[in-house]
Amino acid sequence: MPVRVAVDALGGDRGPDEIVAGALASESAALEPVVYGRPGLDTHGLALVEADEEIGMDESPVEAVRAKPGSSLVRAVRAVADGDAQAVVSAGSTGAMLAASLLHLRRLPGVLRPGIAVVLPARRGPSVLIDAGASADARPEQLLQFAHMGALFSEEILGVRDPEVRLLSIGEEAEKGSQLVLEAHELLRESGLRFAGNTESRWLLEGEADVVVTDGFTGNVALKALEGTILTILGSLRSELGASARGKLGGLLIRPAAGRVRTRLDPETYGGAYLLGLRGLVVIAHGSSSRIAIANAIGLAARGVEHDVVARLEERLSAVDRRPDRETADTG
Amino acid sequence: MPVRVAVDALGGDRGPDEIVAGALASESAALEPVVYGRPGLDTHGLALVEADEEIGMDESPVEAVRAKPGSSLVRAVRAVADGDAQAVVSAGSTGAMLAASLLHLRRLPGVLRPGIAVVLPARRGPSVLIDAGASADARPEQLLQFAHMGALFSEEILGVRDPEVRLLSIGEEAEKGSQLVLEAHELLRESGLRFAGNTESRWLLEGEADVVVTDGFTGNVALKALEGTILTILGSLRSELGASARGKLGGLLIRPAAGRVRTRLDPETYGGAYLLGLRGLVVIAHGSSSRIAIANAIGLAARGVEHDVVARLEERLSAVDRRPDRETADTG
Repeated sequence: MPVRVAVDALGGDRGPDEIVAGALASESAALEPVVYGRPGLDTHGLALVEADEEIGMDESPVEAVRAKPGSSLVRAVRAVADGDAQAVVSAGSTGAMLAASLLHLRRLPGVLRPGIAVVLPARRGPSVLIDAGASADARPEQLLQFAHMGALFSEEILGVRDPEVRLLSIGEEAEKGSQLVLEAHELLRESGLRFAGNTESRWLLEGEADVVVTDGFTGNVALKALEGTILTILGSLRSELGASARGKLGGLLIRPAAGRVRTRLDPETYGGAYLLGLRGLVVIAHGSSSRIAIANAIGLAARGVEHDVVARLEERLSAVDRRPDRETADTG
Repeated sequence: MPVRVAVDALGGDRGPDEIVAGALASESAALEPVVYGRPGLDTHGLALVEADEEIGMDESPVEAVRAKPGSSLVRAVRAVADGDAQAVVSAGSTGAMLAASLLHLRRLPGVLRPGIAVVLPARRGPSVLIDAGASADARPEQLLQFAHMGALFSEEILGVRDPEVRLLSIGEEAEKGSQLVLEAHELLRESGLRFAGNTESRWLLEGEADVVVTDGFTGNVALKALEGTILTILGSLRSELGASARGKLGGLLIRPAAGRVRTRLDPETYGGAYLLGLRGLVVIAHGSSSRIAIANAIGLAARGVEHDVVARLEERLSAVDRRPDRETADTG
């Protein structure tokens, strides 16, 4: 039986046809994409579930999800809750995907908040950054849960054995950082994870750790700083090269190498991010996703189903819950 | 009378001779650098104040500053407090500079915490990021003060009239962000500054705003993400180009253009950052500063003295203090 992935055709800046093209490219004997889109959308033979409402990027997520139960985004998420699909992919509003997932899929037992796990294509190999923006404010206990989620992702999807976990801070020393980081550092030291201490954002694209843990505000700022810097530097190089004949010739010669750098380092290359901590597999794709990014995101969703990421995460988090916690031990 | 700048020769990864070379390069009829370094240091004719203790990068800042009153770093800071110099520059430990400045220069009246203001060499022109790492935790009122400090910096040092201020967040919408950002957003809206709302880190190197306000943890993470990404992408490009004959030739041809991009976008280009909110002018240089960066940092310090940044900041912040604040207005 192929893995069925519900694909929201109405999210994404490039329109439904681009998403359908991505879904078509992802189709195989092992993977059956089901498109959620407007009646009459040409899916080139893929199954279409008709949805006539759309959630815009500028709508308030919680209100939009409640007000538009018939939207493609909400229906695609509900397909997972109802067992009609095993995973869902959307390039629509991240906030709306989070709200719809919390409402219809709900959190795994014990999970404080879901976390967004993105794969950074670092120089030394892929590295997981979690949380990349699901919660703007976090407690130390959430960062501990994100560390377990990220470690499971690294093991199951990236095939890393006993992944090294680091905490994003503003210095490598344990005593540096915000109050949140200082407290999370202590929890991580006692977590049983292979915790190697703090890391700085300057190493994110080098890949100092297999898993980098942070709150959603900091993670989102760091991720967008990487994306923006890559675009600005390549754009600046392009305009500098265009300013002289020597530069133009050099620009032609370096084009293939520059393209490889851009493709490899662009955080969009992986196509999608997992929203972890829910009772179902949710992949969020970048709004600007091309058909290739959409196909990659659908493939990522299917890999999560094949590796049973949701059940394994539930097992793992319940094992963490059963460990005697510090406060109990101190007072007991 | 030339501006006298106290220069700590013992900070910096490249050793005292590099710092002396930078000080020499900065010397002019209008600028007199005074070197604080070990007895016997060859200053090529610059005034030397002998200091035989050194504060290492790995020492606890507060303890080191108290335990080593005779260190070059502490003595250089005290020179400003004592009126022996009008500004101080160090490439040593940022934490120790902050601790020494709080102890010996003290805060301006009403200042909650000093802020580090760095100039980002953005595409559309220089942009001020504040706080780049002085306080790891901040309250909304501190972010409001940072906004005023950054606006003054932009006006006085960068010559921007009525600078546009934005708040760093994870979305442009006012309702997006951490609790800290939501509250700071409200304060900034009522601040009388030209506040244009939130900005995202993806625009930092483009230069969407003249002043970008954030807490020191987020600012430090964003700044190091920019620095790291620039180094990683240029390094990746270099190794891709080295892999083929075509690439090697292209690499030779683009070298001048790539050098200009690197020089222009490298956050170290400005040589130093102001530590604002103190009763004296303090410039912190990058630990890895070359002689050129040191000379730039000393020049930046002298410009701050010429523009009387400390007195103007005191005036400005006391004017802010006198404005009826929201809570008083609500309850009064």
